[in-house]
Amino acid sequence: ILRPTLCLLTCEAAGGLAESAIPAAAALEFVHNFSLIHDDIQDRDTTRHHRPTLWSVWGEAKALVAGDALMIMAHKCLLELTEENKNFDLILKVQGELTASSLEMIEGQVLDIEFEGQEEINLENYLEMISLKTGALMKSSMVLGSMIGSRDHSILTPFARCGRYLGMLFQIRDDVLGVWGKEKHTGKPVSTDIKRRKKSFPIVHAMSKSRGNVKKRLINIYKSTKIEESAIIEVLEIMDQLGSLEYAQTLALEYLDRAISSLSEIHLDSDSRKDFEELADFLLLREY
Amino acid sequence: ILRPTLCLLTCEAAGGLAESAIPAAAALEFVHNFSLIHDDIQDRDTTRHHRPTLWSVWGEAKALVAGDALMIMAHKCLLELTEENKNFDLILKVQGELTASSLEMIEGQVLDIEFEGQEEINLENYLEMISLKTGALMKSSMVLGSMIGSRDHSILTPFARCGRYLGMLFQIRDDVLGVWGKEKHTGKPVSTDIKRRKKSFPIVHAMSKSRGNVKKRLINIYKSTKIEESAIIEVLEIMDQLGSLEYAQTLALEYLDRAISSLSEIHLDSDSRKDFEELADFLLLREY
Repeated sequence: ILRPTLCLLTCEAAGGLAESAIPAAAALEFVHNFSLIHDDIQDRDTTRHHRPTLWSVWGEAKALVAGDALMIMAHKCLLELTEENKNFDLILKVQGELTASSLEMIEGQVLDIEFEGQEEINLENYLEMISLKTGALMKSSMVLGSMIGSRDHSILTPFARCGRYLGMLFQIRDDVLGVWGKEKHTGKPVSTDIKRRKKSFPIVHAMSKSRGNVKKRLINIYKSTKIEESAIIEVLEIMDQLGSLEYAQTLALEYLDRAISSLSEIHLDSDSRKDFEELADFLLLREY
Repeated sequence: ILRPTLCLLTCEAAGGLAESAIPAAAALEFVHNFSLIHDDIQDRDTTRHHRPTLWSVWGEAKALVAGDALMIMAHKCLLELTEENKNFDLILKVQGELTASSLEMIEGQVLDIEFEGQEEINLENYLEMISLKTGALMKSSMVLGSMIGSRDHSILTPFARCGRYLGMLFQIRDDVLGVWGKEKHTGKPVSTDIKRRKKSFPIVHAMSKSRGNVKKRLINIYKSTKIEESAIIEVLEIMDQLGSLEYAQTLALEYLDRAISSLSEIHLDSDSRKDFEELADFLLLREY
């Protein structure tokens, strides 16, 4: 519910009524969930947040069309904006924005899929990928809220920038939790993304900072078809030596700062500013 | 290109300029192609019209998101209707229609998937399924053309009915070709849908008309995990005895008649009427 929350908060911050942005907030959540359902099919993930994924319960075929249906529902939701609001120009802009950011999101997913087949990803390419895959829809969450809450065009770009950076912050933290997040019961790191040999931030960092045999070893581990428990421990140790976790948090903090400074161009009341700051702090430090 | 053709023909028949319906025609083709790409993933089909399917070339993950992108492109196309046309009310109606029929199409796909797990499908359920899976988008093709070509609401229902019936005619013929369509080189029936144990029209008919041991045999063959060449011949023989092919063509012809009579409620010039009649005849008799 991060994206609807951002949308409603931004609508209020821009001077509008949160209620008027509810169809857009729902549309954003539908788009997000459609992308998660299809993502789980692609990655063959059987659980998400400790619950079985849709395809693992319904089978792939039904999960695939369920995702499709949610995407269409998102567009249906936006049409509901007309019910209380006869500002057609606004509705077309809102539709254009959500369509454009959905395509950006898919572009990011394609890059992410392509990364799986590449030996090494440089940091710049990784940042571009998450800016699209995760940043685009978070950007749209704030842009839609702003469009619905106010006719002032000058605030769109700062909100857009803030949303994009929050998305990148969110994804970097997500990547951190994918490696160092702790299992509820055992308290041990889950290392999920290492097991799946996912090219997420920690390994992008470790590969870019390592040299010689260490680098060769990492590349070999990530090229193998199955990763042994001992190799996971080895990867964790290399990341530890290279400070990948600390670097990730530093970078996440940098995006937090950029997100919050983007807002300085907008006159916001102190309550709204505090809302965004608290939300950003939560994204930086969340444990799940 | 059947759906765009229907859309443009209907726009002209309603008194509009075909050019003005091009964004809608493109959107329909995008929706159709998105559904084919996802369908091929679900069915694990490696070829379509003698060409390799997208997922078999790009892999499943990329094909899945490519389908998603096409769906979003469809909505983007519709937004282009605004460029020459400032009739917002029309655009919202067009969007509502395409969204509703896309959801109907998905509902039909879900029924189709569920049929695979059921022993026997009755004809009524089959007809409901194809009315949604194939009929809905063909209906929308004519409805969108009519909406864009004319403000006359009274012609929408007849065109909608005609499109829905043409879709059902199309699907029944498609099911016939899936069993009795001939391989280009060998001239022999392809029997593809029997090999895949698809619950398409011929088997729905054969199961509903057979009795006793014949019926048991059909059910058993369709329950087995792999179908032998000898079983395919057996199924073809049973269908032959029950007249499944003739019944399919009779039913297809009935939908052709219904489609064409729906148009009698509308005043059409003779050229337009002829266009629709020729298109319907083609759908009834096509060999590929």
